[in-house]
Amino acid sequence: MFDLIVIGGGPAGYLAAERAGHAGLKVVLFEKNSLGGVCLNEGCIPSKALLNSAKLYEHALHGMAYGVKTEGVAIDQPAVVARRGKVVKMLVTGVGAKMRGAGVTVVKENAVIKGRVEGGFAVTAGGQDYEGAKMIIATGSSAVVPPIPGVKENLGDFVVTNREVLELKEVPKNFVVIGGGVIGLEMVAYYATVGAKVTVVEMLDHIAGPTDREISAMLQKELEKKGVTFLLSHKCLAVETGKVIAEAPDGGKVEIPADKVLLSIGRRANLQGFGLETIGVETNRAGIVVDAQGRTNIEGVFAAGDCNGHVMLAHTAYREAEVCVNTILGKKDTMRYHANPSVIYTQPEIASCGLTEEEAKAQGIDYEVKKLSMRYAGRFVAENEGADGLCKILVDKAHRNVIGVHMIGSYTSEIIWGAAEMIELELRVKDAKEIIFPHPTVSEIIRETLWEFKD
Amino acid sequence: MFDLIVIGGGPAGYLAAERAGHAGLKVVLFEKNSLGGVCLNEGCIPSKALLNSAKLYEHALHGMAYGVKTEGVAIDQPAVVARRGKVVKMLVTGVGAKMRGAGVTVVKENAVIKGRVEGGFAVTAGGQDYEGAKMIIATGSSAVVPPIPGVKENLGDFVVTNREVLELKEVPKNFVVIGGGVIGLEMVAYYATVGAKVTVVEMLDHIAGPTDREISAMLQKELEKKGVTFLLSHKCLAVETGKVIAEAPDGGKVEIPADKVLLSIGRRANLQGFGLETIGVETNRAGIVVDAQGRTNIEGVFAAGDCNGHVMLAHTAYREAEVCVNTILGKKDTMRYHANPSVIYTQPEIASCGLTEEEAKAQGIDYEVKKLSMRYAGRFVAENEGADGLCKILVDKAHRNVIGVHMIGSYTSEIIWGAAEMIELELRVKDAKEIIFPHPTVSEIIRETLWEFKD
Repeated sequence: MFDLIVIGGGPAGYLAAERAGHAGLKVVLFEKNSLGGVCLNEGCIPSKALLNSAKLYEHALHGMAYGVKTEGVAIDQPAVVARRGKVVKMLVTGVGAKMRGAGVTVVKENAVIKGRVEGGFAVTAGGQDYEGAKMIIATGSSAVVPPIPGVKENLGDFVVTNREVLELKEVPKNFVVIGGGVIGLEMVAYYATVGAKVTVVEMLDHIAGPTDREISAMLQKELEKKGVTFLLSHKCLAVETGKVIAEAPDGGKVEIPADKVLLSIGRRANLQGFGLETIGVETNRAGIVVDAQGRTNIEGVFAAGDCNGHVMLAHTAYREAEVCVNTILGKKDTMRYHANPSVIYTQPEIASCGLTEEEAKAQGIDYEVKKLSMRYAGRFVAENEGADGLCKILVDKAHRNVIGVHMIGSYTSEIIWGAAEMIELELRVKDAKEIIFPHPTVSEIIRETLWEFKD
Repeated sequence: MFDLIVIGGGPAGYLAAERAGHAGLKVVLFEKNSLGGVCLNEGCIPSKALLNSAKLYEHALHGMAYGVKTEGVAIDQPAVVARRGKVVKMLVTGVGAKMRGAGVTVVKENAVIKGRVEGGFAVTAGGQDYEGAKMIIATGSSAVVPPIPGVKENLGDFVVTNREVLELKEVPKNFVVIGGGVIGLEMVAYYATVGAKVTVVEMLDHIAGPTDREISAMLQKELEKKGVTFLLSHKCLAVETGKVIAEAPDGGKVEIPADKVLLSIGRRANLQGFGLETIGVETNRAGIVVDAQGRTNIEGVFAAGDCNGHVMLAHTAYREAEVCVNTILGKKDTMRYHANPSVIYTQPEIASCGLTEEEAKAQGIDYEVKKLSMRYAGRFVAENEGADGLCKILVDKAHRNVIGVHMIGSYTSEIIWGAAEMIELELRVKDAKEIIFPHPTVSEIIRETLWEFKD
């Protein structure tokens, strides 16, 4: 009997297995596909490889603004896609090595819960049975495929999801993206940069989901400069060969030419096919119901990552997995979501942590907000000819602690973790002002903005 | 009578004036050159403009590793230098606007202290007298010009300092750098990247001064790959037209061909010509003697920035200036240097904060150290073909708080501030582990390294 069964080898699953293994537990991990899950194989990592190539391409194109002469700058899409594959392969191998290092037994099969056994649970995988005292379910999520006529019929070919969009051997001439949320926008940015005519069809009146509205509007403007058309408050009616049909706010119909359609309207927890019902694991519309320690309604069974339907970000999954493992180990730990950063890796990047103004208002929190143009950061000016960006900080009016940091501009993805630290530690403005930021960096914009507050 | 006289318009001076002005003090600032001091005009900022161009140039050259085709990639040195000028001008204008915004009177003259007056001090500048109740001295530092034969005679032409090296209209064929410290290394990296044959003559047996030795050795290796020759433990004997003569460790003489020589052996506080002696401000070999509130021996007179000889970094100067102003305003504040980050903006970047192993050993601190290759960060792998880097964290063995973070790799300059925050707050490993870092970022390497510790 294993100490711990982990179902799913994505960020939540492999990290849970690694932490538990290092803590001395005997762990078995089930993953029928590549280790690393959607994030590593068809999400965060490969998209970053593509976006990095797009950034280098843009830099090469506009090199002369910085004294760098170039000619014949072109994107080699098959080479970009091939490199993505190489990077993913290297990192998947790395996860495998981590599993071995932690003494985790990895079974490359789909696991189905069979039921309870004396002192634990049994699962069956690849025709064999395994038993474990505890269990962490980390089955992840899948792209939502809406009942729009023509979508299902063309899926995987003319209509693609996050998976296939990272493997396109050529840049589509007309690229239509259904859904202007985070995943959609990164691919919008990539394909617009490398030459596609991109149109985004979005139901809401704004892009980038819960992102601060002022910042998402700035991103929209930047993407429009790259030729992207945003059809906001538009409902997708049908997908037909060579086009997407949408309904405008006035009820009129719009036909958008399309060589390739990306479906990115959201993700849904994977709850079917793992035998959750066999032992009666409670689920709701969003996913598996868990408490702040990752416990399901069944004693000894935990869930972490996208399958609990909470946040659906890889780094949230990591932390949820750690909380589950610590709870199993008898260490006190609690999952907190208020200092959970999020990033959109477009050019410019968007990075946020904590409450937006919209959220603070909705929650009735009395806040003070200050904002500064990125042009107040010397390095930003030195490196970004003619560009602008924004840093916005929210402070609780009474307690004076930082409750939200929102940025658009270069490097913000790498800067935001310190803001997560601030929010997690409930640091007050007065104390945050005493932190020394290296000069000249873009990160200094946080210090500058903090100093806009009167303690 | 002014509330506050500030002598010097560099980072310490202009920030002191800004903070004091915003706090309602009547402030006069004296600066005979451009606002912004060495940092903005001939240091941190223009060097970053050059280094950014070098980075873009390298990216364009090696674009094909990422699927970006380029031809005829070349650096346009006059364009690079011109852009640097434009950036500096824009930011100097920005500092001027900040001074106006804070209601600071700026006098573009050299100020000399005349003596005490009723309730304060008098200075003379441009033939006019000014009086102020308090005074902050922020006169900065200058490049040390050593008594090496041939140096003084050729200064500003064949031999250059930080100032002229940023304005070279053409890339020298043979570029010799005397001194392998931080300032020297950034220009070594720039000129080596854009095609100069660079030789570094360094007295010590290692480069990059107090940087973690393992990390400075990695940087040396990277620069050697770019064709840089390091003559360590070599003493510079003389500079003659077309060459530099150095003494090897074995006593032998080495002649190094040179079209241009950069002098970067260090900086010295500017203490002469401001009338410090008139009122008896105490100085020592390093600079003006101050306490932890920036107070000199003369009541009402403070000193901040390079002129106190402590750290000679712009961001340290900022914080010192704030401590002086807070002390003047009657707010309790104390200058602390233990969480003072430092960065070398080479490719790859080096960023550090807190104690190195060498320093911890010297101070008799019982520490535990963990380190990880940057290849553990997925984004690093996705963006840096074939490259490596390092993250090293030191923890106090008894108290379990983070006391040092040292990194070499992409984005580390923008990542390090969160480590400064950790060290400043004396955060324990156990608590630091709970911070959520966005995935995938290079910053995650800090989280990964933290998890190498057993709480």
